[in-house]
Amino acid sequence: MTTIAILAGDGIGPEVTVQARRVLEALDLDLTFEEAPVGGAAYFAAGHPLPPETLDVAKRADAILFGAVGDPRCDALERKFRPEQAILGLRAALGLFVNLRPATLYPGLEDASALRPEVAREIDMVILRELNGDVYFGEKGYRTAANGTREGYDVMSYNEAEVRRIAIVGFEMAKRRKNKLCSVDKANVLETSQLWRDVVIELSADYPEVALTHMYVDNAAMQLVRNPGQFDVILTGNLFGDILSDQASMCTGSIGMLPSASLSAWSGANGLYEPIHGSAPDIAGQGKANPCAAILSAAMLLRHSLEQPEAAARIEAAVSAALVAGARTPDLGGTMTTSEMGDAVLAAL
Amino acid sequence: MTTIAILAGDGIGPEVTVQARRVLEALDLDLTFEEAPVGGAAYFAAGHPLPPETLDVAKRADAILFGAVGDPRCDALERKFRPEQAILGLRAALGLFVNLRPATLYPGLEDASALRPEVAREIDMVILRELNGDVYFGEKGYRTAANGTREGYDVMSYNEAEVRRIAIVGFEMAKRRKNKLCSVDKANVLETSQLWRDVVIELSADYPEVALTHMYVDNAAMQLVRNPGQFDVILTGNLFGDILSDQASMCTGSIGMLPSASLSAWSGANGLYEPIHGSAPDIAGQGKANPCAAILSAAMLLRHSLEQPEAAARIEAAVSAALVAGARTPDLGGTMTTSEMGDAVLAAL
Ligand SMILES: CC(C)[C@H](C(=O)O)[C@@H](O)C(=O)O
Ligand SMILES: CC(C)[C@H](C(=O)O)[C@@H](O)C(=O)O
Repeated sequence: MTTIAILAGDGIGPEVTVQARRVLEALDLDLTFEEAPVGGAAYFAAGHPLPPETLDVAKRADAILFGAVGDPRCDALERKFRPEQAILGLRAALGLFVNLRPATLYPGLEDASALRPEVAREIDMVILRELNGDVYFGEKGYRTAANGTREGYDVMSYNEAEVRRIAIVGFEMAKRRKNKLCSVDKANVLETSQLWRDVVIELSADYPEVALTHMYVDNAAMQLVRNPGQFDVILTGNLFGDILSDQASMCTGSIGMLPSASLSAWSGANGLYEPIHGSAPDIAGQGKANPCAAILSAAMLLRHSLEQPEAAARIEAAVSAALVAGARTPDLGGTMTTSEMGDAVLAAL
Repeated sequence: MTTIAILAGDGIGPEVTVQARRVLEALDLDLTFEEAPVGGAAYFAAGHPLPPETLDVAKRADAILFGAVGDPRCDALERKFRPEQAILGLRAALGLFVNLRPATLYPGLEDASALRPEVAREIDMVILRELNGDVYFGEKGYRTAANGTREGYDVMSYNEAEVRRIAIVGFEMAKRRKNKLCSVDKANVLETSQLWRDVVIELSADYPEVALTHMYVDNAAMQLVRNPGQFDVILTGNLFGDILSDQASMCTGSIGMLPSASLSAWSGANGLYEPIHGSAPDIAGQGKANPCAAILSAAMLLRHSLEQPEAAARIEAAVSAALVAGARTPDLGGTMTTSEMGDAVLAAL
């Protein structure tokens, strides 16, 4: 029996996750679903954004379908009680160091992008973001010095082993795609990046067929606007990956379209699947959210954790077909509600 | 007597700086120029990217016109000998904590942007980047631990005073523009950002007329593609400012168009003026570089350090006129050489 943990979370998380679950159910794959609270919802219900029971459900499951966390009512809480700690805690507890964020333009959405259609049409890349290290997980603090001045600090760091395991995923992915890997860092300023670059270069000896390039993160942010079609696999650290993947996703039109996978190994492992978008409290509960990112996250779940590539492809084709037929939520310039968009995908399935 | 230090540096730095100097000379302002080597050029000539004599010239001058630094032949050098240390060293030694990076689309260049013309046309913002702190200047190291594993680390931090002095500049600028200030951080993950946000909020009590908003850096990178016209003044730290300003500049068409100012106080002080672009070793010495960013940096120099706003405006109008008349270097889709572009601006002056 295959169990999927559903951690829907805050804001639009529950609305979009419901649609993804409907699509999974329609495939008759004999899946069991187990729901658990997470994020601000869990804090208000159980006093912690990632209650032990929720972590247990996540650990027991074969894969996790995650909605979104984030709630402005929690902004003033002590950091450890904030909703974001739930997703950071899951990434750490489950060892999810691989974050896959594909950015591709769905046919028919050329007009939704701020980029010229001929530029947007060429985008087909995967951003591979390291997810268990960097300045996210180093020592950090907020303190008042002896002279009464407050200061905040966060230690950025990587070690050899952390870089190597994610870089291996990068080279393996590049081999299966176009043999092109672009590693992004800031080695002209950061020692963390210098180590990153050194390890990636050393590893490249094992992958002579892969054309490896290096780019500074400021230049990468620029090139992602100027000519995103030049990229295939981008390999980068946790912080730069956070920034660049959101940027890249928007180049394709709407962040409401893009899924992600967080894995503890290159393939075959348990994983956590979530839309790239956040909890969007401003539109929560109004049926305005685009469920496609959540639905496509379910497709990634089938492909990467359940070894059901055909079922995954069926979902992706259904989303495509619904879009081509004109289905559009407000973020795509349309008027469909969240559940109507879900209906359209189900109808196409 | 007013002295301008010319630190032309590496790659295309010298070519573009020559054109900026020609424009300054044509204005008959009784300026004296003093040249000094910097970056890779200084390393090869004098053994250090920022020789003491160069630092003296920079300190003595009323303002500094800087080209660019960066030379791939220096990549394997110990960090302290690399060209980038020259610009970081100048920023530190001269206390240049204010970095102004305007991003505006020049009329006639709508077609050079990857963004749709109607999106690009609305861009008129200033990115205000803190330049003396953050992970750039914290403790850093590259070491081999007892178990033989290498690791790299860099400490990110800000204290209250550092945030307050740059935030004051932000609010003052906002007052003189559209009373809109967007502070960008990653307070949901970083304590450094939490301190940043707290201090900015405290200071906002002194500026009730300014509408202050906060945005996470990943969202900002996305919004800069989706709808750059929403921004007026963006206030951010050193690292996020590095990434976002390069990104924003590209939204306007070419990084070859955009100048910057680095100042040690909000107004009236000595400053360093440089194009946002780098040394571009791939096109150095071929007459392909666009000198407009350097020429417009000279205009910023006149405005911010020499209190010559009319002369500054004359240069800016001449660049505009040259572009409207069709002058284009290759980055703008044209065929003019660097010096022909300089001629075109001089002719329009
Ligand atoms: C919610 C936040 C902590 C998270 C991150 O920064 O990783 C989010 O932006 C993401 O990219 O998944
Ligand atoms: C050359 C480099 C050290 C520098 C920086 O990162 O600040 C550059 O990218 C810039 O933005 O001026």
